[in-house]
Amino acid sequence: MNGLKVLFHINELSRWQIVLGNITNLLNDVGQDNAHIEVVINGEAVSIFKDKCKQVESGNLCSISSNLSLLEQMEKLSKVGVKFVACRNALKAQLIDEESLPDFVTVVPAGITEIVRKQAEGYAYIKP
Amino acid sequence: MNGLKVLFHINELSRWQIVLGNITNLLNDVGQDNAHIEVVINGEAVSIFKDKCKQVESGNLCSISSNLSLLEQMEKLSKVGVKFVACRNALKAQLIDEESLPDFVTVVPAGITEIVRKQAEGYAYIKP
Amino acid sequence: MNGLKVLFHINELSRWQIVLGNITNLLNDVGQDNAHIEVVINGEAVSIFKDKCKQVESGNLCSISSNLSLLEQMEKLSKVGVKFVACRNALKAQLIDEESLPDFVTVVPAGITEIVRKQAEGYAYIKP
Repeated sequence: MNGLKVLFHINELSRWQIVLGNITNLLNDVGQDNAHIEVVINGEAVSIFKDKCKQVESGNLCSISSNLSLLEQMEKLSKVGVKFVACRNALKAQLIDEESLPDFVTVVPAGITEIVRKQAEGYAYIKP
Repeated sequence: MNGLKVLFHINELSRWQIVLGNITNLLNDVGQDNAHIEVVINGEAVSIFKDKCKQVESGNLCSISSNLSLLEQMEKLSKVGVKFVACRNALKAQLIDEESLPDFVTVVPAGITEIVRKQAEGYAYIKP
Repeated sequence: MNGLKVLFHINELSRWQIVLGNITNLLNDVGQDNAHIEVVINGEAVSIFKDKCKQVESGNLCSISSNLSLLEQMEKLSKVGVKFVACRNALKAQLIDEESLPDFVTVVPAGITEIVRKQAEGYAYIKP
């Protein structure tokens, strides 16, 4: 497998725009055929996938519009090969049904294990 | 040495519960015999080891009960092999006497050096 | 190339003193001839290089004096071999003219790419 191997770790909801911007800059710099990018999502960062109406009702800072914008950016990035991997422990803690996740998200039993394994495969680790 | 090698870096007091939760999830996922886990503690994160009464007097956010709970979790994790390593520079900066540290904590001259050396030994780096 | 290879990643303005303290502690521990240290600066952290008067006018938290102190520390570290590398995307986003940067700062097209490449060269990653 040629190309740069890069793992982004996000565990704070407030860092999504920064992570997606970092990925976009990386792809613009090296070209989408030259990078293998995976985003491992754990902790409260998985709440980006919560039902948006529920979030607004509960006064969550994530409004429908901003969440949709982030999810749209994620979907676009997934179409050029970026993988989004969510931690099952975090989904359970945030009461998020796996069935409700966007199609481009895959689930692993533990996000931390995924991060460790990817580094062992030569992926660079970045925590934006 | 078989098993996953994982280094957790914590330098913020507020991240302790997240770090300990991450470690617990990792151990539950791979089994405690299949992971070598070390936590390097520097910066303000070492203040978890401050005398709890002094902290309450000075209005520190860490109350006795929450600190005890975290220390108890750390002790349990240490009994299944998780290593807790504190930075001497940070301890000095926080006016913490090394003699007052729990038995399961070891001290290194510089936490950053420890982080670098462990990565050179093949440890994955995780900053929760 | 002998010696420890270490990459520090900073993307938050508020973390500068911590990063510079970490580097100082590392150098004190291993000696400046035994470490190759690079600091990759992206996101809002590049605003340390903004014109200080403009910052004060706009009510930015960075006052002239605190910024100067940090820049002086950076310059001293650069003289013992620490490299400071800024991300062009971040500089553009913060409206910072590359010509205005201190001499000891070099610019790369994308900070994230630099982080990935350095890890591929065996540099340890640290996010203070």
